[in-house]
Amino acid sequence: MVILDNHPTGRHFLQIPGPSPVPDRILRAISLPTIDHRGPEFAAIGKKVISGLQHVFQTRHPVVIYPSSGTGAWEAALVNVMSPGDHVLMYETGHFASLWNRMALRLRLMPEFLSLPGTDETGLPVSWRRGVQAELIEERLRADREHRIKAVCVVHNETSTGVTSDIAAVRSAIDAARHPALLMVDSISGLASADLRHDEWGIDVTVSGSQKGLMLPPGISFNALSPKAIETSKSARLPKAFWAWDEIVEMNRGGYWPYTPNTNLLYGLSESLDMVLGQGLPVVFARHQRWAQAVRAAVHAWGLPTQCADECVHSPVLTGVVTPSGTDADAVRKLIHDRFDLSLGAGLGKLKGRMFRIGHLGDTNDLTLMAALSGVEMGLKLAGIPLAGSGVSAAMELFAATPAPEL
Amino acid sequence: MVILDNHPTGRHFLQIPGPSPVPDRILRAISLPTIDHRGPEFAAIGKKVISGLQHVFQTRHPVVIYPSSGTGAWEAALVNVMSPGDHVLMYETGHFASLWNRMALRLRLMPEFLSLPGTDETGLPVSWRRGVQAELIEERLRADREHRIKAVCVVHNETSTGVTSDIAAVRSAIDAARHPALLMVDSISGLASADLRHDEWGIDVTVSGSQKGLMLPPGISFNALSPKAIETSKSARLPKAFWAWDEIVEMNRGGYWPYTPNTNLLYGLSESLDMVLGQGLPVVFARHQRWAQAVRAAVHAWGLPTQCADECVHSPVLTGVVTPSGTDADAVRKLIHDRFDLSLGAGLGKLKGRMFRIGHLGDTNDLTLMAALSGVEMGLKLAGIPLAGSGVSAAMELFAATPAPEL
Amino acid sequence: MVILDNHPTGRHFLQIPGPSPVPDRILRAISLPTIDHRGPEFAAIGKKVISGLQHVFQTRHPVVIYPSSGTGAWEAALVNVMSPGDHVLMYETGHFASLWNRMALRLRLMPEFLSLPGTDETGLPVSWRRGVQAELIEERLRADREHRIKAVCVVHNETSTGVTSDIAAVRSAIDAARHPALLMVDSISGLASADLRHDEWGIDVTVSGSQKGLMLPPGISFNALSPKAIETSKSARLPKAFWAWDEIVEMNRGGYWPYTPNTNLLYGLSESLDMVLGQGLPVVFARHQRWAQAVRAAVHAWGLPTQCADECVHSPVLTGVVTPSGTDADAVRKLIHDRFDLSLGAGLGKLKGRMFRIGHLGDTNDLTLMAALSGVEMGLKLAGIPLAGSGVSAAMELFAATPAPEL
Amino acid sequence: MVILDNHPTGRHFLQIPGPSPVPDRILRAISLPTIDHRGPEFAAIGKKVISGLQHVFQTRHPVVIYPSSGTGAWEAALVNVMSPGDHVLMYETGHFASLWNRMALRLRLMPEFLSLPGTDETGLPVSWRRGVQAELIEERLRADREHRIKAVCVVHNETSTGVTSDIAAVRSAIDAARHPALLMVDSISGLASADLRHDEWGIDVTVSGSQKGLMLPPGISFNALSPKAIETSKSARLPKAFWAWDEIVEMNRGGYWPYTPNTNLLYGLSESLDMVLGQGLPVVFARHQRWAQAVRAAVHAWGLPTQCADECVHSPVLTGVVTPSGTDADAVRKLIHDRFDLSLGAGLGKLKGRMFRIGHLGDTNDLTLMAALSGVEMGLKLAGIPLAGSGVSAAMELFAATPAPEL
Repeated sequence: MVILDNHPTGRHFLQIPGPSPVPDRILRAISLPTIDHRGPEFAAIGKKVISGLQHVFQTRHPVVIYPSSGTGAWEAALVNVMSPGDHVLMYETGHFASLWNRMALRLRLMPEFLSLPGTDETGLPVSWRRGVQAELIEERLRADREHRIKAVCVVHNETSTGVTSDIAAVRSAIDAARHPALLMVDSISGLASADLRHDEWGIDVTVSGSQKGLMLPPGISFNALSPKAIETSKSARLPKAFWAWDEIVEMNRGGYWPYTPNTNLLYGLSESLDMVLGQGLPVVFARHQRWAQAVRAAVHAWGLPTQCADECVHSPVLTGVVTPSGTDADAVRKLIHDRFDLSLGAGLGKLKGRMFRIGHLGDTNDLTLMAALSGVEMGLKLAGIPLAGSGVSAAMELFAATPAPEL
Repeated sequence: MVILDNHPTGRHFLQIPGPSPVPDRILRAISLPTIDHRGPEFAAIGKKVISGLQHVFQTRHPVVIYPSSGTGAWEAALVNVMSPGDHVLMYETGHFASLWNRMALRLRLMPEFLSLPGTDETGLPVSWRRGVQAELIEERLRADREHRIKAVCVVHNETSTGVTSDIAAVRSAIDAARHPALLMVDSISGLASADLRHDEWGIDVTVSGSQKGLMLPPGISFNALSPKAIETSKSARLPKAFWAWDEIVEMNRGGYWPYTPNTNLLYGLSESLDMVLGQGLPVVFARHQRWAQAVRAAVHAWGLPTQCADECVHSPVLTGVVTPSGTDADAVRKLIHDRFDLSLGAGLGKLKGRMFRIGHLGDTNDLTLMAALSGVEMGLKLAGIPLAGSGVSAAMELFAATPAPEL
Repeated sequence: MVILDNHPTGRHFLQIPGPSPVPDRILRAISLPTIDHRGPEFAAIGKKVISGLQHVFQTRHPVVIYPSSGTGAWEAALVNVMSPGDHVLMYETGHFASLWNRMALRLRLMPEFLSLPGTDETGLPVSWRRGVQAELIEERLRADREHRIKAVCVVHNETSTGVTSDIAAVRSAIDAARHPALLMVDSISGLASADLRHDEWGIDVTVSGSQKGLMLPPGISFNALSPKAIETSKSARLPKAFWAWDEIVEMNRGGYWPYTPNTNLLYGLSESLDMVLGQGLPVVFARHQRWAQAVRAAVHAWGLPTQCADECVHSPVLTGVVTPSGTDADAVRKLIHDRFDLSLGAGLGKLKGRMFRIGHLGDTNDLTLMAALSGVEMGLKLAGIPLAGSGVSAAMELFAATPAPEL
Repeated sequence: MVILDNHPTGRHFLQIPGPSPVPDRILRAISLPTIDHRGPEFAAIGKKVISGLQHVFQTRHPVVIYPSSGTGAWEAALVNVMSPGDHVLMYETGHFASLWNRMALRLRLMPEFLSLPGTDETGLPVSWRRGVQAELIEERLRADREHRIKAVCVVHNETSTGVTSDIAAVRSAIDAARHPALLMVDSISGLASADLRHDEWGIDVTVSGSQKGLMLPPGISFNALSPKAIETSKSARLPKAFWAWDEIVEMNRGGYWPYTPNTNLLYGLSESLDMVLGQGLPVVFARHQRWAQAVRAAVHAWGLPTQCADECVHSPVLTGVVTPSGTDADAVRKLIHDRFDLSLGAGLGKLKGRMFRIGHLGDTNDLTLMAALSGVEMGLKLAGIPLAGSGVSAAMELFAATPAPEL
C-alpha cells in the first residue's frame, strides 16, 4: 500500500472516538484466508461469535450480525419493526441522534425529536451537553394516549459529545407512562466500553458496530433483539429484505447466514471476543473509566470545559474538549495532526469548530494516553491557547495513583 | 484463531465460485492499521479505488461502494430506482436470479419472472442450463405498451450454474422494443473475470461484489450507475437511507463517505485494483477463459455433462458438473472435502444434490487447478462414479499446449 | 516488497528440498513484534522451544539453538569438540557430505573421506546413490588402533540425492570396532521428517536447521549434544566463541542466551513445535513416507530412475529424478519454473545437469503434490523427454488408496 | 502465540537500546513466503540489499551479510584478518567493548585493553563515561615499534553507556603513529542512527547488526570491508569457514550466498533500506539527535546525571540515566515495566544496578518518546527517587520548539 508507506517512523496515534486502534491480534486474525461460508469450519466460528456477542450485550436473546457498517444497523432496527408513517420518539443528544432522526425521516417515518432548548453560557446547545432527560420522555409518552408512538429511540453514548445517557431511566420512564412503545438504543460507541445491559434494562433493539469497543475495523454491525421486537417485526410493513431479521436468525441457529457474511471480520470478532470476555466485562469497563478520568483531569488542569456538562454522564469512551470561543478547533486539530501525527475527532454538526474529541478506547493503555495528552498540550500551546496548567502532569498523577485494573 | 489452527499441513483448496482464494498481497493489505476515515490519507485511498473501479466496470459514471456484502447491492439497485408496486421484468437463469426475484417481492415490487419452460433429458430445468434468451425479453417488452415495466433485471454470470448471459443482446432487445425500462445487471461473479462493459452495453445499474473476480474477502459491494439511473433515482419512492446513492456520490467526490466505510477492505480493494489493472483486463479475461477451457476439457474427458448446455455461454468463472442421476452430488463433495481438503460449490435450489460447481477464479494458476482436478477425479472414483477417461490428463494437455496469458 | 509483488496470480509451488513451504501460522508468528530478549516473556518462550526441541530430537540432553543458518551449526559441531589437526572420518554420500568435509579442511582438521568407488551404468557416482555403508566405517575404525580418529561424521538425509543413511548401523559399527570416536550426524534435512533418535542411536552431536522439517524460514540452527560431547568440548582446543556451547547451555537454563538470539524465528519455532508435537512425530513421519511413495510411484511410471538406487534408504523428504543422459536437467527445471511457476531442486556438484530434486516436505499435502507432479509431467513432455506412462495417474492411485495419516 | 496473547490492551513500549521497535512494514515484509535462495527472484533481492547497505555504510567496498546475530559479526571480523597469537589493541568504553575483548581472548588472540583509570565522584568507572581517547591509542601505537599490534578495535556507539567515540580521531591517531594496524569498528548500535563513514574515516572492518538503527529483528549482521582488510584476510591464519569473506564476496556478485541465507530477514532488510535511504541519511541522523536532546532535557530536569559525562559524545541512540547511589536501578526498571508496560535497558557489567538505559531508536516518534518519558517519570516518583523537576515538561518544550526533521 504505497499510500500508507510514506508515513514517517513511529506509530500514528489514532485518538478519535472510533474507529478505535485495532490490536495486532485482531488485524492478524482478519488476514487469515477466507474460507467457504457454507463449510463446517465456518459454522463453528459463526456459532462462537453469536454466543460471545450475547455475553457482551448481556442478553439471552438473538443478536443479528450484519455485513455492513453501523449506519446499516440503525436502518435495520427501524425497518424491521416499523410500518410506513409510524411515529417514533427520538431524543437530541447530539449529532448522531440527529442523523438517526434524519434517517427515520428518509424512511418515511414520523419522528418527533425531543430536546432541551437553547444554548448555555458557552454558546453551545444545552441538549448536546447533557444526556437524555428521561422525565421529558415520560411526559411525552403520557400525553400519547392513543399510543401512536411505536418506539422510543435514544443514543447510549453520544460519540459526537462524550455524553452518555441513563438507559435504565428511559426504561423506567416508558414503564411509568404505561406505554407500549419499543425501546431502541444506539450503543454503537458504548458497547464493550460502557456497561450496557440489553435484557436487564428492557431494551427491545440495541444497535451497535464493530469499530469501537470491540476494537475491530468497521464493516460489521449488530442488532440485539428482545422477544417483543421479534414479535413486532412479524407484522411490521416497511419493506425489508437485506436487513430482515427472520431469515438471519433462522440460519444463525446453525452458524450460517442467508447470504455471504463478512468472513474475515468475523475472524476478527472471534478474536475480539476472546480478548474482551477473557478479561471480563467489569475489567473492560473499569479500564475505560480510568482512562476517561485521566483525560478529564488533564482537561480540567488546562482550564478548558468538557463538552459534557453533567458530572454524572461523562462518557468512558471519549472526551469532548471545548476550545475558547474565537479559536478554530479544527485548526488546532490540524496543527496537532501535522506536527505530532495524532488524530483527534472533529466537532460535528452544531459543534463544528467549537470543540475536538479525544477518544480513549480500543487498543490503548496509560502511556499511549500520556502520549496523546502530551501532543494535545503541545498543540494547544502552539495554537496560542492559554492554559491554566499542565494536563499532562495531572494525568500522570492520576495514573501513578493506582495500577491499571487489568494488571 | 484456534478454530482454524487445527488444520493439517498444506493449504486448503478453495474451489468454490466465490469467495475466491484471496492473494496474500490483499490479505496483508487488509491487515494494515485502520485509519481515520475523515483524514487526508483516507481521501487519497477513497479517490483511488473509485477511479480504479470505473476502469474495471468500463464506465465513466459513478460507482458506489457499499460497506456491505453483495446482497446489499442488489437491494440498493432496486430501492434507488423503484417505487412501491413497480413492475420489473426478471429472468430465471438459476438460483441467484431466483433470489433476486424473491428480494423484489419482499420489497413490495411486482416482479415478473421469465424463463424457458420444462426440464431436459437430464431432468434439469432447461432455463438453468442456458443464458438469458433476449428475444423473450423483447417480446415481453413489446407487449408492455403502457410501459409499466420499469426495469429489466438479468444476471450476467449465474454463479449457481456456470452460465453467462449476453448482456449486449438484452440491451438490443430493449432498444428494439423501444421500451424505456432500465437495464439492471447482476455481475457479482462476472466482474473482473468476464468482460463487462457498463457504458458500451448501456447498463443502467450494474451490481457487483468484492469476493469474486476482485479476489477480496466479502464485505463490500458496488452499484455502477448510468445518468438515466441517477435521474430515475431522484423521483423513486421506495424508502431509502443507507443505500441512497445521492449522498454517497456527493461525498465520494472528495474521497469520503457519508458514514463509516469498510476501511480495511478498501485497502484490499486498492491492492486488488493494482493487480487487476496492472495486468490489464484483457489478460485477466484470457486467464479465466483458459482455466475454464481446461476444466471443461476435464469434465468432458470424465464423460460428465456440464451444467451449461450452450457452448456459447460457458462461464469463465466456474463450471457446473452434473453427476449421474442416482448419485448424491453433495456426498461426493463431502468425500472430496474430507479426503483431499478441497471445497467445491454445492448444487443450489433446483439443482441440489444433482451437480457440484468448480470455481476457477481468484488467486489461482494452472497447477492449482491441476491439484483441484486431481482431487475431483480421485473423489469421483472413490464415490464409485464411472468415468470415461482421465480429466486430469485432458487438462494437462490443454495447459501444456500454450503458456498462460500473463507469462 | 515490489520485487515479489510482480508475481502473477496463484501461489508459487516451492518444491525444493528446503527451504520448505512455510505454513502461514509460522509466517504470522515470526511477524509478531520483537520483544526484549532479557525480559520475562522472552524466558517463557526460550524455555518452551528448548524443551520442545528435545522432544523432536528425542533427547534428554541439551539442544543448543544458534541464531545462524545450518552451515553455522556444522561449524559449531566441529569447533566445540575438535582440536587443531584432529582426524575425523567422514563419508561421501553426496554434495552436502562433501561440503562438510571441505569445511573440516578449512578449519585445519584432517578429514578422511570414505566412499564407494566408481560410477554405475547411469554414469553417476555409486557413492551418491546409496547411504553410508556402515561396514566400511567399522573396518576403518578397527584399523585405527591408535584412536587418532576423533569423530565419525555422517549425513542422515543427503539433501543433494534423496538418500538416507542408517545411523543406528553407524553407531553399531563404532561400537563393534570398540572405538571412542564421537558420532556426529548432520540431520539438517532429516529432523522432523524422518525418524531421528539422538539418544537411542547414541549420537554425540546432531546438527540441524530450521528450514526443512520444522517448516521455518532459514536462520536458526541446532546442535543436540550428548554428555560425552559436552565432556569432550571442555578440553577441545579449536578457538571458539560465538559457537561455544558452554555459555549458551548455561544461560539456556533460564530461557536466555548470552548474546542476542533470533527472537522472531524463535516465535516461529514455538509455533512449529506446537504443530509438530501436536500431531505427534509418528504422524509426521508417516505423512512424509506417504508423500515420498506417491512421488516415487510417479517417477517409476515415467520410467525414469530415482537418484537413490537402494530401495531401503529412499528419503521421505525429497526424491532425486535422473534425466536421460543427453538432456540438461537444469534446462528442464527452468522450463518448468517459467511455464508452471514451480521450483525444483537442481543437481548439485557431481550431479549438476544430470538430475533434479522434488521436495516433499513442509507445509504441503496430497493435492499440492499432485499439482507439482502435474507440472513436472507437463514439463518433461515439453522438454521432449519420452515418458513410459503417466506419473500423475500413478500418484493419484496411491493417494486414493488410503487417507492421509493425519485425517 | 499464546505466550504473547495474554498481554493487556495497548502496545508495549520497547525503549531498550535494541532490538529496536520494528516498523509494521518490516514485520510484514519478513512474513512473506520464503523463496528458493537459488532462484532468479532471490538474486534481485540479494543485489539490492548489498548495494543499499553500501550506501548506509558509506562505502564503495564489499559489505558481507551474515545469517547470524551481531556477536557473530564480531567473530567474523577477527577470524578473517587475524592469525593465532596476534596482538590487538582494544579500548574499554563499556560492557560491549569488554565482551569483544573477551571474545578476542577466547579466540586465542592477545588483546591489550586500554582505558582511563579509576572512578569518578559518582563511583562509576571513568572510562565507561567517556569515548575513546584517541591520544592514548596514538601513544600506545608509537610505542609499538615492531608493529606487533595488528588491529585497533573500538566501539563506535557503546550500547551499554550511551557514549559515542570519535572514529575519525582514532584513524588520525593511527596515521599519526604511522602504524599499519587495521582499524576495526563495532558500530552495531551506531549504524543508520549515528553518522558512520566507512570509507572516509578509513575503517578497515565495520561490524554491525540488524536490530538497531536498521529497525529489523535480530538475526543478520554485517562486516563492511576495506581493500586492505580483504588483502590481509588472504594470509590470516585463524581457522575460518562459516565466517570466511572470500566465498561470500565472490557469490554475492551474483546476488547469492554460498550457503542458505536468512531469506526472510533479507526481505525485511530490503524494506528497511527503502525506508532509511528513502528518507536520506541526514534526516535519519537528525531525527535521532532530536530524540536524544529531548531525552537529555528530561534527565537534566529530573536532576539525574547521564552516564555519558562528556557533552561532545552523547549517543543519539540511547541515554544512560544514573540513579542516586543507594537505589537499585533494576528495581526501578521492574516497577516501570510492571506498572506501565515499558521496557528499559539494564545497567550492564560494572554498571549493574547503578543506571538504566532509555533507547530512542527504531520505529518511534516524538509522542512515543513522550509516553516513555511519562512512564519513567511516574516510575521514578513511585520508587521514591526525589526529582528536581518535570522531565516530561522539559521534553515537551523541546519537541514543541521545532518540527521533526522528516515533516
